[in-house]
This record gives sequence, structure tokens and C-alpha cells, in this order.
Amino acid sequence: MAIPCPPFIGSEKLSIESGAMSPSSPSPLILTQDELKKIAAYKAVEFVQSGMVLGLGTGSTAKHAVDRIADLLHQGKLKNIVGIPTSTKTHKQAVSLGIPLSDLNSHPVVDLAIDGADEVDSNLNLVKGRGGSLLREKMIESACKKFIVIVDESKLVAHVGASGAMPVEVVPFCWKFTQDRLQNLFDYAGCVAKLRTDNGGEKIFVTDNGNYIVDLFFKKDIGDLKVASDAILRLAGVVEHGMFLDMATTVIVAGELGITIKDK
Amino acid sequence: MAIPCPPFIGSEKLSIESGAMSPSSPSPLILTQDELKKIAAYKAVEFVQSGMVLGLGTGSTAKHAVDRIADLLHQGKLKNIVGIPTSTKTHKQAVSLGIPLSDLNSHPVVDLAIDGADEVDSNLNLVKGRGGSLLREKMIESACKKFIVIVDESKLVAHVGASGAMPVEVVPFCWKFTQDRLQNLFDYAGCVAKLRTDNGGEKIFVTDNGNYIVDLFFKKDIGDLKVASDAILRLAGVVEHGMFLDMATTVIVAGELGITIKDK
Repeated sequence: MAIPCPPFIGSEKLSIESGAMSPSSPSPLILTQDELKKIAAYKAVEFVQSGMVLGLGTGSTAKHAVDRIADLLHQGKLKNIVGIPTSTKTHKQAVSLGIPLSDLNSHPVVDLAIDGADEVDSNLNLVKGRGGSLLREKMIESACKKFIVIVDESKLVAHVGASGAMPVEVVPFCWKFTQDRLQNLFDYAGCVAKLRTDNGGEKIFVTDNGNYIVDLFFKKDIGDLKVASDAILRLAGVVEHGMFLDMATTVIVAGELGITIKDK
Repeated sequence: MAIPCPPFIGSEKLSIESGAMSPSSPSPLILTQDELKKIAAYKAVEFVQSGMVLGLGTGSTAKHAVDRIADLLHQGKLKNIVGIPTSTKTHKQAVSLGIPLSDLNSHPVVDLAIDGADEVDSNLNLVKGRGGSLLREKMIESACKKFIVIVDESKLVAHVGASGAMPVEVVPFCWKFTQDRLQNLFDYAGCVAKLRTDNGGEKIFVTDNGNYIVDLFFKKDIGDLKVASDAILRLAGVVEHGMFLDMATTVIVAGELGITIKDK
């Protein structure tokens, strides 16, 4: 990797380049969002050890981590890794890279999962699933001893839903009824619920599990997240939602000025 | 119907035949379990009024209610009924009987649902889904103004799971992992979790929604049902469970000695 990956100490924010903030130094390196994602991903892979069962995340940030794990395997720096992909997409990527794979049935305890997130709040609660694979991700990441979340700094939010949709996976049967009940549930937060579509609205988006996604857009903070979570899950027709509460053990944030590591 | 359907007063237990318990009277009529189911079903249909949106249940007891509703429609004693079937099986039955049908998307408020149950406890909490259609039943019956449950007396239990399985609908993805987590959740009640199969174990049973069923068998009372419900629903991979808590507004029980009506 061309971009230097600086060391970290606790949750202290460090600069990408030594002296980057000094007025006498040259202009700091301008990094693209994708480069920031890569920095976070590579940093997370430093936690991977030979012999581990690894949850392999889905999305543009997690993709860098999977690539990096494959590189280290091929270089012989990692050995005896078993990967558990969180989506059919990641499964394909891992197969193409030659990472040995398994599943939760065979490996119900996962040592470490590395995955991106759509939002991270100040308590390390996450919103995931804007890419559509929230259920498998949640199954695997709830089976982890350690769950490292990798994001660029644009994903940090003051509260859940502040930057966009909170996805809910629902059964196709009477989805509109479930959508309306979800919207009503969060009426107090100005919720608008929308069925996710594909191809510019031409067809309904279908998850890896054959379900639909209803995206919830909140105008305000929805308040106590555990209460909200239980209320959603109690609706018959809901399969899972995209709030990952008390699951992340570490969040690695890559920003213009360096990497921040937040531990639970 | 050949079997007399006695009147009822509150929750008082009444005899099928006048004087059935008198030593001088002839032996009371011996009724089969199916005849008892029919008595309960016909009694429930007395609550149906013209113009209602009706949830149509699934199973051997509910089937009698659907038959009876069709009879009354054809006799002109009921008019403008819209039925919402709780399974593909009931959908087929209702279509064959000419009952006008709709769904929750078009009719999100259901006036009355009539359905059987596998178990009824003393608080009118139910176990349903041994027939496999718990999710659609729960969606429709949670949208009801009134939900009448019809059972023969063999379905009355001291606690949930006392007579057999409490079914849980799970996504096929890593079902064994979910099954193990469910069993662990109720380890304190001696829980054994089993994937439901079809054709004598030859193939996995698949629900109308394309999911699997894990049947939970408890050796002891599982305690607080709302706590148990939330714990099950919080497991990623679970779609829905077969406990219907605080949903039944009336339970009609047909027994050898008459009908009992229990109101919430």
C-alpha cells in the first residue's frame, strides 16, 4: 500500500504524515474517501492472527480488508485462516482470492469480524445494511469474540439515522402493511418508510435471503435505541433491522488527519 | 350441522345435551375431536356480521369456520364479506368455496379473525404454528380488532410448551447455528430444539415464506413469556415465533360437556 498507515495509541487522533499539521511542513496529503477506507481496513487486518476464524464483511470498505487478508495469506504472513463471508458478494470475492471458507453451522464461534458500517454513533452503535446484507452480517457479527468496524470519518453521526436510511429487512408477504406499521412506529420522529428498489425503481430490491428492505428515514433522533429495536422486532413481518447495538468492540476511523481507534 | 350447538353465558361451562350429567339420563353423546372442533368453529362464526373484513385461519379447526362462512354466504345470511387467508392452504380453500379475498396491503384493518391454536394457557396466551403458518397468521391476527380462537379442550395447557413444540420460523441461512442459539436460550427449561422435516424426515419443511421451522421442546415452564419472546426475536436469524401473547380477545373451547367462552 502506498499510503502510510500510522501507529495508534488508544483513541488518540494521529496525523497521517508526521508533521502534517505543522505550518512549515508541505501541504498534507489529500486522500480520497476510498483511500481513507483502505487505511482503516489495513489497520484492522493488523489484528488478524494465523489460525483465526474470521467474519468477512461486505461493502466497499470491508472489500479492502478481504483483499488485504488474501495478500497476507499469499505472502505466507497469515496461515490457517477460515473466512465466513457475510454475503454472497463477499463469498464470491473470497473464493476468487483463494481464502478458505466455512459457515456458522461448522464454525459457530468467530474469533474476529471486520466490517464497514453506514453510521457509527458516539456509543459505537451502528447502522448497517444500506448495501442490503444486514441479516447475514448481524448473524455472523453477533457470534464474534471481537468485532472491528472500519469506516471513514464521514460515517460518524450524532444519532442513528442522521445521515440517511435505517434499513429493515421484511418478508415479502404484505410488505406494504409492514412498511406502514414501521412508519407509524416512529411517527414521533417524523419517519418516512420507503421500499427499496433496484434499477432506478424498476424492480424491488431482494436480499440474499429472498426478503425485501424497507428504509426508514427519520427527521429526528428516535431516542432509546434498545426500546426502538425491540419495538421493530416485535412486528410480525420484520426479519431484522440495521441497528447493531452493543456489538462493535472496536471502531477504526480513518480521517484526513489520521486514524482514530475507539474501543468499547 | 347434526351436532347441536348449545347457547353460552359468559364463561360458564354448559352441557352439549340437556341433562347430560344426570345419572338417570341416557349416556351422553360421545363426540369425536373433529366434532368438538366443528362446534367451536360454528360458534365463532356466530360473531361474523355482513360487511366484515375477516381473517381466515389455518388448520383443522379453522377449516370448519371457513366452510361455515362460505355456507352462510351462499345462503345469503352473510353479505359483503372480505376474507384474508392466513396461508396458501386457506387461500386455496377459500377460493374453491367462492369467498371474496383480499390482503393486508389493501385491508390493513381486520374486523375479526377466527383461527385455531395448538395451545391456550390460562391467560389466553397461545402457541400456534405446529401446522407451519405462524408468520402470516401473526401478521393478520395482530391487525385484528377482535381475534376469536377456537379449540377443543385438549388444547388447554398449564403453561406454554406443555403439550408439545413451540415453533420458531428461522431463515435457512445457517439454520443450525440459529437452532443451537435457540436451544441455549432455554437451557434452564431443558430445551431441545429440532429442525422440522417433512416426508418422514426426508426433506426440510419449508414455510409459505421460504423459511425453516425450528421446534422448541421444553421440559419445564419457561417463565415470563414476554421476556422469552423478546429474547427469541433478538436473535438474528429468527423471523418469528409461535407464541401469540395478548392477542386473543376470545377463546371458544369445545369439550365433551359443552362450550366454554373465555373473554380477555
